Amino acid sequence: MLGLMQDWQLTVDKILDHANASFPRREVVTRSVEGPISRTTYGNIYRRAKQVSNALRERGIKPGDRVATLAWNTERHLEAWYGAMGMGAVLHTVNPRLFPDQIAWIINHAEDKILFFDTTFAPIIEKIAPQLKTVTTYVALTDRDHLPKGTVPHFVAYEDFIHGHAQDAQWGGFDENTACGLCYTSGTTGDPKGVLYSHRSNLLQAMAANQSDVFGCGANDTVLPVVPMFHANAWAIAFVAPMCGAKLVMPGAKLDGPSVYELLETEKVTFTAAVPTVWLMLLNHLRETNSKLTTLKRVAIGGSAVPEAVLRAFEDDYGVEVIHAWGMTEMSPIGTIGKMLPESYAADRETQIKTKLKQGRAMFTVEMKIIDDAGVEKPHDGKAFGRLVVKGPSVARAYFKNAGARNEKGECLEADGYFDTGDVATIDPLGYMQITDRAKDVIKSGGEWISSIDIENFAVGAEGVACAAVIGVAHPKWDERPLLIIEPKPGAQPTRDQVLKYLDGKIAKWWMPDDVVLVEKIPLGATGKINKLALREQFKDYTLPSAQAAE
Amino acid sequence: MLGLMQDWQLTVDKILDHANASFPRREVVTRSVEGPISRTTYGNIYRRAKQVSNALRERGIKPGDRVATLAWNTERHLEAWYGAMGMGAVLHTVNPRLFPDQIAWIINHAEDKILFFDTTFAPIIEKIAPQLKTVTTYVALTDRDHLPKGTVPHFVAYEDFIHGHAQDAQWGGFDENTACGLCYTSGTTGDPKGVLYSHRSNLLQAMAANQSDVFGCGANDTVLPVVPMFHANAWAIAFVAPMCGAKLVMPGAKLDGPSVYELLETEKVTFTAAVPTVWLMLLNHLRETNSKLTTLKRVAIGGSAVPEAVLRAFEDDYGVEVIHAWGMTEMSPIGTIGKMLPESYAADRETQIKTKLKQGRAMFTVEMKIIDDAGVEKPHDGKAFGRLVVKGPSVARAYFKNAGARNEKGECLEADGYFDTGDVATIDPLGYMQITDRAKDVIKSGGEWISSIDIENFAVGAEGVACAAVIGVAHPKWDERPLLIIEPKPGAQPTRDQVLKYLDGKIAKWWMPDDVVLVEKIPLGATGKINKLALREQFKDYTLPSAQAAE
Repeated sequence: MLGLMQDWQLTVDKILDHANASFPRREVVTRSVEGPISRTTYGNIYRRAKQVSNALRERGIKPGDRVATLAWNTERHLEAWYGAMGMGAVLHTVNPRLFPDQIAWIINHAEDKILFFDTTFAPIIEKIAPQLKTVTTYVALTDRDHLPKGTVPHFVAYEDFIHGHAQDAQWGGFDENTACGLCYTSGTTGDPKGVLYSHRSNLLQAMAANQSDVFGCGANDTVLPVVPMFHANAWAIAFVAPMCGAKLVMPGAKLDGPSVYELLETEKVTFTAAVPTVWLMLLNHLRETNSKLTTLKRVAIGGSAVPEAVLRAFEDDYGVEVIHAWGMTEMSPIGTIGKMLPESYAADRETQIKTKLKQGRAMFTVEMKIIDDAGVEKPHDGKAFGRLVVKGPSVARAYFKNAGARNEKGECLEADGYFDTGDVATIDPLGYMQITDRAKDVIKSGGEWISSIDIENFAVGAEGVACAAVIGVAHPKWDERPLLIIEPKPGAQPTRDQVLKYLDGKIAKWWMPDDVVLVEKIPLGATGKINKLALREQFKDYTLPSAQAAE
Repeated sequence: MLGLMQDWQLTVDKILDHANASFPRREVVTRSVEGPISRTTYGNIYRRAKQVSNALRERGIKPGDRVATLAWNTERHLEAWYGAMGMGAVLHTVNPRLFPDQIAWIINHAEDKILFFDTTFAPIIEKIAPQLKTVTTYVALTDRDHLPKGTVPHFVAYEDFIHGHAQDAQWGGFDENTACGLCYTSGTTGDPKGVLYSHRSNLLQAMAANQSDVFGCGANDTVLPVVPMFHANAWAIAFVAPMCGAKLVMPGAKLDGPSVYELLETEKVTFTAAVPTVWLMLLNHLRETNSKLTTLKRVAIGGSAVPEAVLRAFEDDYGVEVIHAWGMTEMSPIGTIGKMLPESYAADRETQIKTKLKQGRAMFTVEMKIIDDAGVEKPHDGKAFGRLVVKGPSVARAYFKNAGARNEKGECLEADGYFDTGDVATIDPLGYMQITDRAKDVIKSGGEWISSIDIENFAVGAEGVACAAVIGVAHPKWDERPLLIIEPKPGAQPTRDQVLKYLDGKIAKWWMPDDVVLVEKIPLGATGKINKLALREQFKDYTLPSAQAAE
């Protein structure tokens, strides 16, 4: 028997409808790419987003067509976002930080028809336009006076693009499972894979993200998403803020310490969100200028683990609560959130710090578990680690065009319907999850797992060690055994025995590396992390002494 | 094109799943019907709710079957609630405050198969059992020692009912639109009508209710729903609290001032919710005992308008924020919420009070508008009033068994899909809605509407007036014109001219009553409100002087 409640489809246009009906005069402030601070309202954005829909329709865009943006967080980006989604097109946010060839590949793969871009990125557009097979119109997110002088045909200024179009347009009216957004993940291997969000997945993500214990924003908040809209929907903030009527402050192209600080203070921001790198820049600026944060209450930090120094600085020096968040593009993106339980508030400060450095607890709508290779759940004791797999209405089921398919339905899921995050994690008795390794970096020795990161964290403490990496190397008896690779400090020459002796007692006996080798330089990836792929390639034929003994 | 996200059905069993996974040790405290305070946890409730599912299945209950409760807010009621809903049965909360014959009518109409009841209500059960046609088992929510000695066959103690059943059971796995709960509204006319909630409507209601600007509860809150679970899902709190991990305090049968106060203080409650009557009792107790509220931060008040004295007492005398809420059983039930906007916080205290006495602003997922008889929207100027109609995923589309159907599909909706609340309201420029009248009490004069309540509010200020009621009386030219009915103060004899002169200048000229009559006693309904139905009946043949003149 079905219930007898109304059929109200969960489409994201209803978010801006609500903002227009309930908060039409709430401000949206942008540091424009052209320079000046620009001020508008949700009411204006609503009407101009409708103009975008009409302009897109006039250019032949139909429901399901992909419309790309290569853009900073600005009011115009928000208009294009809702204008495209509202009419049933798919808004594809392209990450401008990728190499131009990757950008071109992604746009071609997505078959984007219209490309909105900030003038900052005009040089990229000029470079890749000849390669783009499907884009028919390039819309520079500016007015005619600021239109870049380019050689690309079909350049049009955004203000001209929407000019004269009606400020009303039909939105929604389609199934809530209709595709709404597209965002590519750039894995370390293989081609980028597109995550195809639905209206439903995005709307539920926003409602979940705005629960009191997640972001907890309301109409009295002023929210600054430094995290870009091309970075997994700005962690849902482009949906959350209009949903709750928060004043929205958009940083445009300037994400440096002084620029972010200026907006935080002049606009009286109460909640902000970004990756640790942004906060390191801000904290440096605060220290250099001896400045204070006078209105900021909460800062969400994700993208990579919160460094302890950043946590302590925000909370202890500046009185700002840190909300450690973890997620993935495939999770829309929020998975866990570091808001503390009463048990944690009651603990001493050092325990609190340890808790806050974990990735947090599953927010409602996210189911998670840690499993071994056989799929058996590991206990939530904060020690046992396993592959972290997740489930929920905002978690990907498949990638665009079946990339990375793992079954005949084209899905990227485990047999029991969970999505494998590729991370290895622990979950403690209170539910706080901590990432301990990437799954591919874990060393599998005799069916048991050894955390490469745990050994590395201890090994860098040994005398003369500048950098340490642990990888699994083939072993005839144990399948894999750990090899510790060390980059010595200049002039130092730590020996195998010295290092192993140092590790003795710090890690389990059976975790002890079977060998230690010194290298001149441990290779790092683009993001500054150890490039284990390169190390594994380099040492793929390495024979451990223990392997010879076993044979 | 559809998105590629996971199919995760919005069923309410996932709420208790989440509580069990994330907050298994969070307390649920009950003032038991037997007397003592009882303490359990979400983990225990989860396991015992699974036992309920298994016990129901054993008794032949199938998905879609109705299972009734006639019960206070207790841990056992919560177990029965999730146990029935989780397995796909429909949990029918029966209001024990109705007359026994009405209760019997409702249970027969719902075709309830099993009836869980608190021992408090054993006399009602004994009285109505012979009339009940479908109930096969009566489960007293207690243990064998407290089982009432009754003459009804098939009485079983709850603890015996669930004893020995497995603590695991399959939950969910069905469509999110599956019926989940049933609650009857008792209108002033006609038979009660059943609202058939779906899993989806309840889950979305709970997520909406827990947005920061609605109830805004989190894991660090302790929540006391004085509002009963049989009163429109305890305003979603039976879902909200386990969803966010709040400690839950259940008041059982004792809703008087001293009992509620004791729980608020001993359990350190931070958020509570109930109708004004409950708070009048609490405030009296506080004054009589010169007590303070030391932990309570927020109180949600709904069911009827918040009296100004209650608002001022909570906020000014006891430092507790009042959240004025408005809704209906047909809205699951929350529609609007009185959390203030920045503009209101910036206003002076008397303006704030006026704002807080309004019914509040539409929460996300609720669309509302005020319309005239032709369906044309009225402006949001805080003055124009119109019929309040609403839309949303948690708003009823039809009543159980097509009661009150208004079209051939059996729906109870307007032509444009909105549900007519039966209220007349204004909406001000900031979006605060205020109920001004019941639609049936509005006087329709020459196509324009006159608010009976507005005139009454002024008329009671005239000398010698104890009580005033305004009804519409037939008029040959204007269709209806207002008749003012006055109950004089003892010994007073106010005249028509005196009263009309007093009203002159206070209300619009064309609102001026066409006549004034004195009555000995204005009839009141069961809830203390003026019984306009009786007045309209009494004066249905009344001829206004102006009507004679017009003829």
